[in-house]
Amino acid sequence: MIKAEIITIGDEILYGQITDTNTQWISAELDKIGIKTVRKSSVGDTEEAILTIFSEATSRADVVLVTGGLGPTKDDITKKTFCKYFGTKLAVHEQALIDLKAFFQKRGREVTGLNLGQAELPLNATYIQNKLGTAPGMWFEQNGVIYISMPGVPYEMKGLMSDAILPRLQGHFKTPTIFHQIIRTVGIGESILAEKIADWEDALPENLKLAYLPSMGSVKLRLTGFGENEEVIKAQVASEVQKLIPIIEEFVYALEDIELEVAIGRLLKEKGLTVSTAESCTGGYLAHQFTKVAGSSSYYWGSVISYDNSVKINQLGVRPETLDQFGAVSEETIIQMSENVRQKLGTDFGLATSGIAGPDGGLPDKPVGTIWIAVATKDKTYTQKLQLGGFREQNIHLTSINILNLLRKVLK
Amino acid sequence: MIKAEIITIGDEILYGQITDTNTQWISAELDKIGIKTVRKSSVGDTEEAILTIFSEATSRADVVLVTGGLGPTKDDITKKTFCKYFGTKLAVHEQALIDLKAFFQKRGREVTGLNLGQAELPLNATYIQNKLGTAPGMWFEQNGVIYISMPGVPYEMKGLMSDAILPRLQGHFKTPTIFHQIIRTVGIGESILAEKIADWEDALPENLKLAYLPSMGSVKLRLTGFGENEEVIKAQVASEVQKLIPIIEEFVYALEDIELEVAIGRLLKEKGLTVSTAESCTGGYLAHQFTKVAGSSSYYWGSVISYDNSVKINQLGVRPETLDQFGAVSEETIIQMSENVRQKLGTDFGLATSGIAGPDGGLPDKPVGTIWIAVATKDKTYTQKLQLGGFREQNIHLTSINILNLLRKVLK
Repeated sequence: MIKAEIITIGDEILYGQITDTNTQWISAELDKIGIKTVRKSSVGDTEEAILTIFSEATSRADVVLVTGGLGPTKDDITKKTFCKYFGTKLAVHEQALIDLKAFFQKRGREVTGLNLGQAELPLNATYIQNKLGTAPGMWFEQNGVIYISMPGVPYEMKGLMSDAILPRLQGHFKTPTIFHQIIRTVGIGESILAEKIADWEDALPENLKLAYLPSMGSVKLRLTGFGENEEVIKAQVASEVQKLIPIIEEFVYALEDIELEVAIGRLLKEKGLTVSTAESCTGGYLAHQFTKVAGSSSYYWGSVISYDNSVKINQLGVRPETLDQFGAVSEETIIQMSENVRQKLGTDFGLATSGIAGPDGGLPDKPVGTIWIAVATKDKTYTQKLQLGGFREQNIHLTSINILNLLRKVLK
Repeated sequence: MIKAEIITIGDEILYGQITDTNTQWISAELDKIGIKTVRKSSVGDTEEAILTIFSEATSRADVVLVTGGLGPTKDDITKKTFCKYFGTKLAVHEQALIDLKAFFQKRGREVTGLNLGQAELPLNATYIQNKLGTAPGMWFEQNGVIYISMPGVPYEMKGLMSDAILPRLQGHFKTPTIFHQIIRTVGIGESILAEKIADWEDALPENLKLAYLPSMGSVKLRLTGFGENEEVIKAQVASEVQKLIPIIEEFVYALEDIELEVAIGRLLKEKGLTVSTAESCTGGYLAHQFTKVAGSSSYYWGSVISYDNSVKINQLGVRPETLDQFGAVSEETIIQMSENVRQKLGTDFGLATSGIAGPDGGLPDKPVGTIWIAVATKDKTYTQKLQLGGFREQNIHLTSINILNLLRKVLK
């Protein structure tokens, strides 16, 4: 097993001033190529702390990945500390300087004093170009251990990892051939899913491993095959997926790593169908799920968010007597909302949500978390009642996932 | 200086399968009471890894905070490993058992086999009740070092920290009296803000420290006073804040730690004013900013999301000839959107957004990131053109912050 250790350098992370999203991403990417992270650490911007963690990590890991501390200011001491650790010094790296100048030139600027220092690397570093920023990536080898230094800016780090470092690690460690198959599910919890597929999972060949990656409202399965020959592993994985699908078919929405709203967007685009929404309790969150997907304007036409009952009546044409008799959170209201928005906006589908998101506003017969959703089509309107919990943001999110899932089922 | 080390136990975090939000929160809370985090680490669910990090941390820190590995299943080995580390053993803790049984009873369930084990604690542990879950908190002392063990479930951990552990740490270490004043700003970047207030910051008394806590589109300032007498520190901080405000008055939206949409919601409620929105490029995200705030239904009435031009024309009454002549992304269109939504929904303010969120859809004269925003009132419509970048989600988020800020200025 090849062992990795990930080190984040910077006081802002240590003191909780900024969120570290890098280490999770790096460890997940390493996992995909068969490298196991054995320790993650954050240390501050002091030479002593950095030198200590370098020597600790060296004793445990085959590869040490370091992010942060590469900026142009005097707080950023990662490079100097690498020099001290390796007993070497900084010098201008010719190619790094050329790339740095080109980076600035493209943006119509000159490289100035502090930034010039970014072309200086420890003498034993292998230079890795950072196409998205000014701090280069670096690769070191000493006594069989690999050290990688990257900037802390997430998209720069991701660019370096994907373009250069992950392929290089695979080559260097001759990691086993690995093939992943993602199976994305919705509408089933992790434990029930695990029970349903337990027999299948237990019968998996030794070189195939299943991982459950749950998030709120959906579970991602990742089936990984390890071996020597890629074609053989691929065929093995495919054959197991073929056995799995029939067991959980109604919950599977994609065999690749995409969000539910992306999968639905593709379905709508393929079929040339359009959607509008009428939102009460989700209050724009459902529309945002559609519209955060690039290109969604071709199938998503718009929404009427009717937070106030006057908007339900005047903009959506919900009958006041329906609201009086059954209330805003009712099947009768949701049917009118979904059918009317569909008709008014002239789309194939009309989606509607109405419920008590909380934390206040619960009624004896309609506690917080009582939510109605509906999908109206030309011929039929599908409704569903949800009974969720007491947390507002969670109720909004889960309502959105549930109605997207209802639309998915209607689309099939 | 009192030094803390935070340790997260669990393979799911190590392999990047779940996001660790605990360590950031813990370190930020420790920072507030004057305890400095010197190292954060994640290790897997193995005895060896846990014992190693325990002894490393012991050599560096005055307090070691550990989360995770307290579940009822056999993967969860934190308690057993603490026993090994301290040379003690597990035994049923009477009060823990009483609380555990009460916890289950309240939910109409019996405590069963595996869960019963959660009332077993190392003999040297001080029991700390977890009111929100079944895994107790624990406090150990050995050779002057404090060890704290908490469950990994974020809201359980936060409950334990806030109710019991933070006050106990303050008592134990007799940390200096600390007073924080938050100053929340919007509409100014970190570096320009820092320049503007440099003279003020340089002249701060020695026992006052300023922290910059930036997030996308806004910067939070935290002025912290350290000392002996709380009243004296409070007065000192208040006097410095009084000098600061005039320098950055136009950017300050709150002197407490609340989001912009919460501050605006309070202003609207106070003044008895209502808002509606007409969204194109923000696609529901702006509505969600309003509606995610509990109680927002009293001032936020609804939105028309006009992603398709037909919705702009039919639901918002934008004139087709305006769209033809100036395009959807224009001052002329945004004025009609904001004024018409205000009138149609019958609110005091009408907010509108229209722009090219990207990544596609840019035009030579309107590149991706070109966005118009407007706030219509009874008497006047305020417009603003934004020139943002190439990232869709970022453009949506920043547009939303900018228009909320425009509304804030209009409200004042």
